Amino acid sequence: MALVVQKYGGSSVADADGVKRVAQRIVATKKAGNDVVVVVSAMGDTTDDLIDMAKQVSPLPPGRELDMLLTAGERISMALLAMAIANLGHEARSFTGSQAGVITDGSHGKAKIIDVTPGRIRTALDEGSICIVAGFQGVSQGTKDITTLGRGGSDTTAVALAAALDADVCEIYSDVDGVFTADPRIVPAARKIPKISYEEMLEMAASGAKILHLRCVEYARRYNIPIHVRSSFSQKEGTWVVDSSEIEGQDDMEQAIISGVAHDRSEAKITVVGVPDKPGEAAAIFTVLSEAEINIDMIVQNVSAASTGRTDISFTLPSTDGQSALTALNKLKERIGFESLRYDDRIGKVSLIGAGMRSHPGVTATLFGAIADAGVNIEMISTSEIRISVVVAQDDIDTAVAAAHHAFDLDAEQVEAVVYGGTGR
Amino acid sequence: MALVVQKYGGSSVADADGVKRVAQRIVATKKAGNDVVVVVSAMGDTTDDLIDMAKQVSPLPPGRELDMLLTAGERISMALLAMAIANLGHEARSFTGSQAGVITDGSHGKAKIIDVTPGRIRTALDEGSICIVAGFQGVSQGTKDITTLGRGGSDTTAVALAAALDADVCEIYSDVDGVFTADPRIVPAARKIPKISYEEMLEMAASGAKILHLRCVEYARRYNIPIHVRSSFSQKEGTWVVDSSEIEGQDDMEQAIISGVAHDRSEAKITVVGVPDKPGEAAAIFTVLSEAEINIDMIVQNVSAASTGRTDISFTLPSTDGQSALTALNKLKERIGFESLRYDDRIGKVSLIGAGMRSHPGVTATLFGAIADAGVNIEMISTSEIRISVVVAQDDIDTAVAAAHHAFDLDAEQVEAVVYGGTGR
Repeated sequence: MALVVQKYGGSSVADADGVKRVAQRIVATKKAGNDVVVVVSAMGDTTDDLIDMAKQVSPLPPGRELDMLLTAGERISMALLAMAIANLGHEARSFTGSQAGVITDGSHGKAKIIDVTPGRIRTALDEGSICIVAGFQGVSQGTKDITTLGRGGSDTTAVALAAALDADVCEIYSDVDGVFTADPRIVPAARKIPKISYEEMLEMAASGAKILHLRCVEYARRYNIPIHVRSSFSQKEGTWVVDSSEIEGQDDMEQAIISGVAHDRSEAKITVVGVPDKPGEAAAIFTVLSEAEINIDMIVQNVSAASTGRTDISFTLPSTDGQSALTALNKLKERIGFESLRYDDRIGKVSLIGAGMRSHPGVTATLFGAIADAGVNIEMISTSEIRISVVVAQDDIDTAVAAAHHAFDLDAEQVEAVVYGGTGR
Repeated sequence: MALVVQKYGGSSVADADGVKRVAQRIVATKKAGNDVVVVVSAMGDTTDDLIDMAKQVSPLPPGRELDMLLTAGERISMALLAMAIANLGHEARSFTGSQAGVITDGSHGKAKIIDVTPGRIRTALDEGSICIVAGFQGVSQGTKDITTLGRGGSDTTAVALAAALDADVCEIYSDVDGVFTADPRIVPAARKIPKISYEEMLEMAASGAKILHLRCVEYARRYNIPIHVRSSFSQKEGTWVVDSSEIEGQDDMEQAIISGVAHDRSEAKITVVGVPDKPGEAAAIFTVLSEAEINIDMIVQNVSAASTGRTDISFTLPSTDGQSALTALNKLKERIGFESLRYDDRIGKVSLIGAGMRSHPGVTATLFGAIADAGVNIEMISTSEIRISVVVAQDDIDTAVAAAHHAFDLDAEQVEAVVYGGTGR
């Protein structure tokens, strides 16, 4: 008997029919001889509706109360799901994050999981019950206040529970069939990837693929929990995210295996112009930004112009953090001694992900060539062991993605190992 | 410094404007130098909407899951209320029933409060915070499952917290100004009662006045918590429900003081025809009904007809229980030996409530006379120390209420001590 943890997103349980369909799938998994723990998100637009209500009574609601409010969403979906399962003749019990033993720190709205103590879940499983757990929420260790985990919280709940319960697999259901080599809305020839390593999936997630959150993949990698990404609307096999040792050809590869092309429209670029080219200047800039709790993505520093002794430093960051970054930097303008700031949020990031590309310089050349041939100008470049990212103008993203996808023979019916997806959600 | 517990019903917090208005009232109470604990119901129709959703996924949802679902309603209203208060510059913390220490038995949907351990509320008050508590809910003692208290649950939560915290007053807010001598929609001349004793309020509640639930009044009486029933839409004084010793003229009264006229449209009448007139027959009937968990209200047994040795027994019960009562009785027809059952749900109960009426036979005579003069036939009669109830045809209820109200000089500008209300909700 296997222990399966399943996670259903809001689009899978958007209405009563969705809840009933998901219930049938859960019961089928149970009937196949598995123990089943289900993590569920709030129904459809519930969370957005609750946030709207909060805005109507307060422009800046306290985090503790916003968390209390938002957790009502999962409470509704999990109770309805348990009812629908009971109606199919199987026992199901719903548990809040607190009841399921999801212990977090006290950072409301973006709490981190400290520990998972699923005693009540274990007991309920032993009694033959299907367990439904509220995603996205926990209880703070000291104050015992209700917390939410922030973006990707439900996926992370599922993986964390799978790890704590030593589950055999964590199935993440949404309305897409799996992870694709590129966003199918941009590249119609994009293909579903059957298997991808944690590392590549991490780069995909960090590069804008929204199908799995970075956090959830990091957690799965640390505890080596196989993730199966699939659609709740079909019975098709989806994409398996597993340790690279379990992927054929990745252990002793001789050539780069390109997984896919990801893109991200949510970033902005700041250029700090005329930074004195002496030790400690860059450190000063990024200390300021770190103190303002701003996550920086790509950083590029040009070689300094010998004539001026000054250099430009460019970096990308979530465009939602743009204003606070500019404010923080301007406060330190005199001390750092830069000349001016330039801000551009009409940019996007396109990334090529694949194992072993670092040792194959041809990959970089092919990528840059394809993007140039498509008439797209590259503004910034950054690379890792298994990823090359370029920043381009926002209007050029689709063109660049399609060009890269085609250049690496990722279009349908050509490759086996492939990546990316992104539902836009 | 006084400790005030306030309870706001769903109609008071039906939308964002309602929530903000209630927040202002709470802050005003705090600014006046009081510690404030607020119990809040779900917004407007939220509970009904959640029940509708449950019905869409299951015809008979398990009680545990229905409670989990319904408690989302108060979670939303209490978090929004805390945000609205924070927006006015005062600290407010919301607490679920479980967090507030409302310990219940395990009867889902109609749990009874076993204990209240408001340690977290006390701490928050000591730290200067306003406390918002979810009404209608608690946590079961053994299994630690979420429970709901059933009808009147939020009022009962408020009174129970007031008792556990040794509060100075429990203010119950709704959309009516207080307890009236009769339903103002039926008797336009009905007047607001300034003060009423627990005992009379109990009889009012038991007789169909919906403004305060029986359970909440019983709790307040046991712990001697003064209740102030008032409107959240005005600043007017409402009705105080207090110990009779605190009401002038009730201690040493020489004559009956009629409080008001209540009515109840929710009952049905069953007549068991031709019951053998021998010891144990009535007991057998009511044992059957008690085993079916049916609450009986009035019972009338006619003197037996000497010729047949048989008698008729009539009783009233909530019409929602009518079908199960008939089923339970028919099962025992042979053993009890009655001839037939008659069922009538086109009836209603009209009750006159007031202290000392038992020792004044004139009260009964005046009541029956007034009802007869209005052309209304009385089907059943039952009396207590401070109440006379009659069953009439449903179509005659309004006429009977108005006639009784007028006969006892309760119409506006005439009396000081008066009763009843009932918003129909």
